[in-house]
Amino acid sequence: MTFVRKIEVTWGTPRTERADAARNRQHLIATARAMLAELGPDQLTMDALAERSGLGKGTVFRRFGTRAGIFGALLDDGERVFQERVLSGPPPLGPGASPLERLIAYGRARIHFMVEYHEIARAAVDGRQPIPAGSQTPMSRAHIRMLLTGIDLGPADLDLLAMQLTAALDGPILLYVSATDLIPAEQPLTDGWRDLVQRVCRP
Amino acid sequence: MTFVRKIEVTWGTPRTERADAARNRQHLIATARAMLAELGPDQLTMDALAERSGLGKGTVFRRFGTRAGIFGALLDDGERVFQERVLSGPPPLGPGASPLERLIAYGRARIHFMVEYHEIARAAVDGRQPIPAGSQTPMSRAHIRMLLTGIDLGPADLDLLAMQLTAALDGPILLYVSATDLIPAEQPLTDGWRDLVQRVCRP
Repeated sequence: MTFVRKIEVTWGTPRTERADAARNRQHLIATARAMLAELGPDQLTMDALAERSGLGKGTVFRRFGTRAGIFGALLDDGERVFQERVLSGPPPLGPGASPLERLIAYGRARIHFMVEYHEIARAAVDGRQPIPAGSQTPMSRAHIRMLLTGIDLGPADLDLLAMQLTAALDGPILLYVSATDLIPAEQPLTDGWRDLVQRVCRP
Repeated sequence: MTFVRKIEVTWGTPRTERADAARNRQHLIATARAMLAELGPDQLTMDALAERSGLGKGTVFRRFGTRAGIFGALLDDGERVFQERVLSGPPPLGPGASPLERLIAYGRARIHFMVEYHEIARAAVDGRQPIPAGSQTPMSRAHIRMLLTGIDLGPADLDLLAMQLTAALDGPILLYVSATDLIPAEQPLTDGWRDLVQRVCRP
């Protein structure tokens, strides 16, 4: 239902892994991505991935544990690429644009990411606990907090404002993507985020 | 951890119950409230409530099911009183103040309620699923949506803005009350809500 894997993502350095394990992981992720694009999520099973990748079932099992683990790994990989774009990609998402432009671009990119990944995220949490409603993406809150320091807001509690904006960004997306009968409406969410941020940051 | 019972609360009319059942319920709730105030939550058990209320253990069990059910009933009862204050209590929370004043007062009262009830809410969800992060209090969203229609906001997507503000109100409170090592900081949350609403609603 919700994005349980994303709360495990931090800004830290990824742990090192042995070179052959890293190659296997990259190969499995690339194969899983190709299968997902060609066949859709239902066909992406442990057995099918082992067969298509040419690696043993044991390797796939040790790497992912369960079928949901495959989707979790795809989500983690997507988060890693997303983080790199935010930290060092082209502006306005990456450095080089004004903090307000980056804040608007961050919400747009985050909404796009969560809409793009919502099926993967849902498959990644099969049989796990949903995130409690108080959880927030650490990346979002830290990044929004950092951008707010560069905007002239007058007197403001920036820690709390970052929590509020993170919740205002995540909440509506999660409402949409957890409603199984709705196609996530990306454009209204993106417009609404820009509108909210512009209202909050008016001089 | 979180406020799972509150998502069951709606603006609808409470279902009717037989007069003696209603009397028993009111007596049990009042007794549980008195025990909570005198003895604290740990002493409020099914057996202790049956003994103190003078009703049979069977009656207490049929009414609440589990110990968590007692706390759930206390939370529901608190929500009912809270709703009445919002719908027909004195201004600025109730009708009679401007929509902007009511919006600020609603957040202040909601924060106070959730801080006041956070131990009860935590005890009410023992062993149950946490609310998924996409959940929102239906009462909050509907009430905020209604108040926004009375504020001159220029062009705005009021449905989305109500979702964003509900998330911005709930998110930080849930972060605070789910962090077991923090005493919920009511004043900064209240100040931050007023600040956010005033920024969003500036003409």
